[in-house]
Formats: sequence, structure tokens, C-alpha cells
Amino acid sequence: MDSTEIHQIVVLGSGNVATRLSIALRMAGLEIMQIYGRNLQYAKMLADQLGTKFTNDLKDVIPSADLYLLCISDDALTEVIENFPFKNGLLVHTSGTIPMAVFKGIQNNYGIFYPLQTFSKNKEIEFEDIPICIEASSKENELKLVNLAEKISNNIHLINSNQRKTLHVAAVFASNFTNYFYSISKDILESNQLSFDLLKPLIIETVEKVLSQNPDETQTGPARRGDKKIISAHLDFLNSQPQFKEMYELISKHIMHKYSKQ
Amino acid sequence: MDSTEIHQIVVLGSGNVATRLSIALRMAGLEIMQIYGRNLQYAKMLADQLGTKFTNDLKDVIPSADLYLLCISDDALTEVIENFPFKNGLLVHTSGTIPMAVFKGIQNNYGIFYPLQTFSKNKEIEFEDIPICIEASSKENELKLVNLAEKISNNIHLINSNQRKTLHVAAVFASNFTNYFYSISKDILESNQLSFDLLKPLIIETVEKVLSQNPDETQTGPARRGDKKIISAHLDFLNSQPQFKEMYELISKHIMHKYSKQ
Repeated sequence: MDSTEIHQIVVLGSGNVATRLSIALRMAGLEIMQIYGRNLQYAKMLADQLGTKFTNDLKDVIPSADLYLLCISDDALTEVIENFPFKNGLLVHTSGTIPMAVFKGIQNNYGIFYPLQTFSKNKEIEFEDIPICIEASSKENELKLVNLAEKISNNIHLINSNQRKTLHVAAVFASNFTNYFYSISKDILESNQLSFDLLKPLIIETVEKVLSQNPDETQTGPARRGDKKIISAHLDFLNSQPQFKEMYELISKHIMHKYSKQ
Repeated sequence: MDSTEIHQIVVLGSGNVATRLSIALRMAGLEIMQIYGRNLQYAKMLADQLGTKFTNDLKDVIPSADLYLLCISDDALTEVIENFPFKNGLLVHTSGTIPMAVFKGIQNNYGIFYPLQTFSKNKEIEFEDIPICIEASSKENELKLVNLAEKISNNIHLINSNQRKTLHVAAVFASNFTNYFYSISKDILESNQLSFDLLKPLIIETVEKVLSQNPDETQTGPARRGDKKIISAHLDFLNSQPQFKEMYELISKHIMHKYSKQ
């Protein structure tokens, strides 16, 4: 048996990442031996979906797996690592934020297996293009994790903990904050009896441009043009929603500043 | 000849909107009689592309067109309307911001023909799904403009000047500000020798979710979870880019506030 190949996996967690990742690995031919989850009901739901066992007791985690995949919230991660019942398994976490040092002095073999994507329990997703960011405690473990990642994705990267933090901060701007701005635009429209659907062609085109060109060059709008008259009219319009006004003003200021230097 | 049909059009302007709109109208069988542009070189370039005439003198604008389509920056619009050489043409502007009242007392027949989209001179675009927002000085003019819009789009809306302003403010959040956030994420990555390509699958998935679901429900990230430890680590990370830090802090505050109420 090739020691750089992972065959049997225990997944710890039952949330969005645990769900999508364990389904993808299962579909790629890996064996998910067990689901551990603090919430027994959620652990059972995911285990049933995969046709495997489940537990909510760390002491019952099967000791013979090739990999323990910790898809656990950052808050709970340290506790699970500290209370893990044995030291010789290969443990990896899937967090964008927690450095690999979280395992140091506690576990012997460890690493990171971070899929850079937003997951929902109920939305299927293709892993093929998803960047999988790998970091490991040894070259041998790195090779094991890269081999595993290649079974579900064509987009594998060796990324250290500092780079991973950079990626996570950038992802907050590119995903979480943009999502919030879509919700603001929806709110503004619906407060005025207009449908969010009106903006969808614009949203699609904006993103298509960003993906095929350079966002520094595709920037448009009143702040890009330094059009203070329109910005001022928009700020007046937002008087009844001071939180939106505050963000509009700050972001416009920074866009104007960026492009005034060019 | 049906008086509610527009056949011959003079386009005023030679920028992004003038270019994409006149090409779309021409492809739909309309005659673009002439391009007017303050910058003769740009006017000639667009006119050559369409195989039509051009001028940079308002006094030379052909008086017999069924429609004068003003695709002119908001700043220059008032001046062009005030100096327009005759009063009986049908004049419409394509601005998201300027109210229809800009024509009042100066022209007899006027309206708005506002395509809610971001345009580039050099990027082809299908008009079929683009919302065309129509407003007019009379029912007859409204009908003319709706008939014209239907030749290029299946997504026509009667939108008054106040609703149009609402749309424009919402579009700034959904397009201009999201584009800026993509450029910030690119900047953060490239400052740390990481490629913006790493974020593209995440950007696509985020937008696909927003388009098929509800952005209030697809919100994820540290601020959504109220994870102050990660937010604080990200703010530390952004110490060297205080403008990014300022935006990260403000937006996280508003996201936390929004979801803490639920």
C-alpha cells in the first residue's frame, strides 16, 4: 500500500465545509469512515447522507484513519485539537485564518487543507476549479495532502499560514463585502418599490469584466469620474439610511483619491 | 408611415454608451444618420464604424431625424440641451441621474432612454436582457421610445426620474463599489506575491448565489458570525494599508449590526 496515498478519512464537523468537502471526497472514491460532530443530530444527518457512522464523542473517533479532516469553526478548533484522543494520526484543518502552529507540540503529523470557496450545505458545487491551499508539517504529509487534493481539484497551491491569512482578508473584500453591497442595493431598491432583478444584468456584466480584465481599469461611476455633484446628490438621497450614507461617503472618498493620483 | 415608429436617429456623444447603443440600434435595423461629438476625432471614429456622417458643430446637426439620442456626460448635458438648434425634435438623454426636468421649457418633445448597464467602447455586449428605463414628456413619446427599446431589449421598464435616481444609487453599490472591492482584494494579494486568479472561483460562486438566492441569506464571513477575534486579526493585518483598514472596520461594524438584530 502506497504510504503517500490517503484512502480512509474521518471528517470532524457537520457544517457547510464538512458537508461539501466530504461529499466531494466520497464522490472521488475516498472512504469517509466516520463523521464527528458536537451536535449529534447534524452529525447523523451528514453521516446518513454519506452512508457512514457518526459520533459526538471525541473518545469514540476511529483511530485507524489515514486522515482526520477538521472542518470546525475557528472558535472550537483549539479545543478539539487539545482533546483529540491520539497523537499519531494526520490531522488537518480547513480554516482560512488559524495558523498551522495551532497543532504544534500537541500533534505529530498535521497540516492545512483549505478550499478557498464559499460553501452552502444545500448548494451543490464542482470542486474542479476551487483552489485548495495546502500546508503541512513535513514533506511527506505535504505530498499526501497534495495527492488527495488532486483527486477533487485541478487548482492546488502550496500556501503558508501567512499567505493564507492574506488570502482570507482579500476574500472578505471580494466575497463577504461585495455580498453585503448586493444586499444594500436590494434594500435601496425594495424600499422604493423596485425589484432587485433590475440590477442583475449589471451585476453579471461587472463581474464578467473583472474576471476577464483588470478591476483597476474597469472602475466606473461618479467617484471614478470625480463627479462631486452626483456624489452629493446620492448622499442627500441616502439621508434616511445613515449607515448606507456613511459607507457611500467613505468608499467614494477612497475611489476619488485612488484615481486622482493617476 | 407610422408616427409611433422611430427610424432615423442622430446620436450625440461618442463615448461608451454612444458606441454600444448606436451599434445595437444599427444592428436592429435603425438608421444612425449622424454622430455629433465635441471631440471630432472620436466622433469620426464612431461614425466610421457605423458608416455614417459626423460633426462637432451643434448647428450642423441634421434637423429631420425622428430621435436625438444624447449619450453625453452629465456635466455637458445641460449645455448641449440649451444650445440645441431646434425645438421640435424628440430629444432623449441616457443618464441615470439627470431628471427629465432638464428639458422642460427648452424642448417640446423629450424623454429618457436609460440602459441600466456598464458599457465599454471595446467590449461587445448583448442588449437583449439589459433593462431599458423609459420616461417621456407625453404618452405618444413614451410609446415611441418603448417601441424603439423593444427592438433591442426584452426588458423595458417605465421608470420616473425619482425611481431612476434610486436605481443609480443602488447600481453604485452593486457595480462601482463591488468593482472597487475586487481591486482592493487584487491589491492585497499582489502586495503579498499572490495571484488575483486565486479568488476568481470564489467571486463567481458568490455572485451566482446572489443571483439565484437572496443576498441577505447568502451573507457569510467573520462579521456575519460576529467573530471579533478574526476581525481584529484582519485589522492588524491591514495596519500598513490604513484606507483598506478603515473600510474593513466600518463595513464589518454594519454587517455585525445588521445580523445581531436577527
